[in-house]
Amino acid sequence: MGDSRITFDRWSGTYAERVDSMRSSAVRDLFAAASRSDIISLSGGMPDISSLPLDAVAEAAADTVRQEGTQALQYGGTTGRVQTREVCARLLLDYDIHVTPEDIIITTGAQQALDLLGKTFCNPGDVIITEGPTYLGALQAFSAYEPDIHCIPMDDGGMRMDLLEEELQQLGHGGAKFIYTIPNFQNPSGVTMTLERRRRLLELADEYNIPVVEDNPYGRLRFAGEDVPPLRALSDEVIYLGTVSKIFAPGLRCGCLIAPEHVLTKINLVKQGSDLCGSAMNQVMVEHYFNDTPWRETLEHSKQLYAERCQAMLDALEEFFPPEVIWTHPQGGLFIWITVPEHIDTDELLNVALEQGVTFAPGSGFYPDGRGHDSMRVAFCFEEPERLREAVKRLAPVIEERLELYRAFVDAGVM
Amino acid sequence: MGDSRITFDRWSGTYAERVDSMRSSAVRDLFAAASRSDIISLSGGMPDISSLPLDAVAEAAADTVRQEGTQALQYGGTTGRVQTREVCARLLLDYDIHVTPEDIIITTGAQQALDLLGKTFCNPGDVIITEGPTYLGALQAFSAYEPDIHCIPMDDGGMRMDLLEEELQQLGHGGAKFIYTIPNFQNPSGVTMTLERRRRLLELADEYNIPVVEDNPYGRLRFAGEDVPPLRALSDEVIYLGTVSKIFAPGLRCGCLIAPEHVLTKINLVKQGSDLCGSAMNQVMVEHYFNDTPWRETLEHSKQLYAERCQAMLDALEEFFPPEVIWTHPQGGLFIWITVPEHIDTDELLNVALEQGVTFAPGSGFYPDGRGHDSMRVAFCFEEPERLREAVKRLAPVIEERLELYRAFVDAGVM
Repeated sequence: MGDSRITFDRWSGTYAERVDSMRSSAVRDLFAAASRSDIISLSGGMPDISSLPLDAVAEAAADTVRQEGTQALQYGGTTGRVQTREVCARLLLDYDIHVTPEDIIITTGAQQALDLLGKTFCNPGDVIITEGPTYLGALQAFSAYEPDIHCIPMDDGGMRMDLLEEELQQLGHGGAKFIYTIPNFQNPSGVTMTLERRRRLLELADEYNIPVVEDNPYGRLRFAGEDVPPLRALSDEVIYLGTVSKIFAPGLRCGCLIAPEHVLTKINLVKQGSDLCGSAMNQVMVEHYFNDTPWRETLEHSKQLYAERCQAMLDALEEFFPPEVIWTHPQGGLFIWITVPEHIDTDELLNVALEQGVTFAPGSGFYPDGRGHDSMRVAFCFEEPERLREAVKRLAPVIEERLELYRAFVDAGVM
Repeated sequence: MGDSRITFDRWSGTYAERVDSMRSSAVRDLFAAASRSDIISLSGGMPDISSLPLDAVAEAAADTVRQEGTQALQYGGTTGRVQTREVCARLLLDYDIHVTPEDIIITTGAQQALDLLGKTFCNPGDVIITEGPTYLGALQAFSAYEPDIHCIPMDDGGMRMDLLEEELQQLGHGGAKFIYTIPNFQNPSGVTMTLERRRRLLELADEYNIPVVEDNPYGRLRFAGEDVPPLRALSDEVIYLGTVSKIFAPGLRCGCLIAPEHVLTKINLVKQGSDLCGSAMNQVMVEHYFNDTPWRETLEHSKQLYAERCQAMLDALEEFFPPEVIWTHPQGGLFIWITVPEHIDTDELLNVALEQGVTFAPGSGFYPDGRGHDSMRVAFCFEEPERLREAVKRLAPVIEERLELYRAFVDAGVM
């Protein structure tokens, strides 16, 4: 382009209003940094895929083209291949979720499912209920439809049902378009919702006639404690999102959405305009992986890896971080949520951390309303234990420095 | 699910208003029929991929996983791999379009690009200008953002610029969010816009400060006549959509969107929430195909195939269809547009055609406003010449029957 590049935006007044409310994800912006070897990345939720049997996957890819090329390389149905949906249905039996291929739509990762849900349910100003903090990609997906997102605070047992009930009382019957939850090893908090609260959530949702959306990308990544049944196993009315991104390969962008018949019909209609169909090639590869490789062994290996890394991170936090800082203790998943004294702004902290060669995800990205500046998400999934320890060691003095300033102010009676 | 399946929709009042205005695509609905061997499908725009060198593609798929698995199976950037964008930039040189990878976003087929454009530009009630008829997938994509779509009639030279100018005069400066056009072998009409009109379109767009979106899926499928430069080759301000679906494989869902810098920044932001990123696996396969296989030869073979099929279809129409029916004579692409006397409704005709084992796409799907019932799109790309001839032969008496009724009414002075 060179000289001819347009440097002013002649259409600056032309964009839709929804674009004004969109924020770029700090995590996506850090993506480039994450691939630099001198940076220790605690920011992204990239699974470690080093355990994948690449030769077997390579063979599967070649077989896919050789044996099923005319289907794998062609347009497919909007709902996805029936064979892929059969694989999804079979895998969900592990969770005691009983569905047929007709109950499932294959999506381009669970992210597309979030977009489709926003598109199907939300007029501008409609209320969506989420955990607070919640997955920033969900906030991004929903924000395109200009909803009013209400966050329900969490504790170690997940979303607080007393506060959800208060919220629903205020909103009234049908007062929200849906309740979005990540009950297992929540992103970003790492917290898991108790069985008692899951049951209570379903009761409240039923009472107020509000659909529940259960996003379960990390459910199979438990490395400690006992499994808790998914909401979808407790009620057929739950809209359930799954993905192969955390148990196989994010690069295949293959998720699934399960919903009651009428909802699925609407979502399918909405999906037609969004992408016509997903990649059949990727779907066949997913079928091969779960049909023809020892994927449960591979997953066991990944879980062991995450367990070690989580422990290394927790140990390092204990060893290096000042006592004013607290954090969660996940039993699975990829993330730990760290809360610092409220006068420390983790957005500002990130700039200094980057100078020290460490990235993390500042907490403000996980709230729609400016909260979260005193928190941060660290991912323990992608780096080796010694690198995790090194990252925490580098972060500690940066936090300590800000705390000392704070203590001095407190001692001087200024704060 | 069995007995527990929910048969009423307890959330029927919960869906977004946009869903009310969405129509299911008759073409998508016919997808299942299209794969039945007893049905001759003239409905879908599925390219014939029988010429693809499956062994080479299979090898490429395996190499992708073996050599680049840790990238191909992992999350990638929202804009797509730089290597894929380099391939796109290189291929566009054939059109005398000069862009760098920074000017490009890789999309999940061109369909996602259409969705992203609607999402980025349209508030409810905003005007979008398209050709009339236009691509039904574009109407579906845009309709999610509740625009007011104004169709400009076409003739054998493409969109009529006199009528576009009239429309723009009424709408005024900046009065539409964009002008969407498929200048080459348009879907559904098969018509190509003349060079003179392309120049005039750009003048008008500039004068009224309205972005032009050029969708060019069929540009490389010319089998007669001379190439006409794409709009993007005539102006750097054009937003350009490309795809590998018609020259390689739809199943990889790989398209590209080129736009001026400021527009691209907005679209990238919007895309983050839509899908985080596309499939890196598929992008590497696309790189391999255009870097390592004799794809130009394969394409030549496909074009010859389409040329033969187009001619077979035109010959059959000439031989079997009554003189009251007219049709376009494409120099490339996949489609012929047929217009029948206006008292014949092609929606109704389709039901009878299905009984005769033939599908086509009724014209009403290609207009947003109820027009098009006297027209139909037939695709000549997917069936063998003798099957195309057979399809036309089966359709002819169905049309003839309705014409005879009409003639009788006219003779009796009723019409």
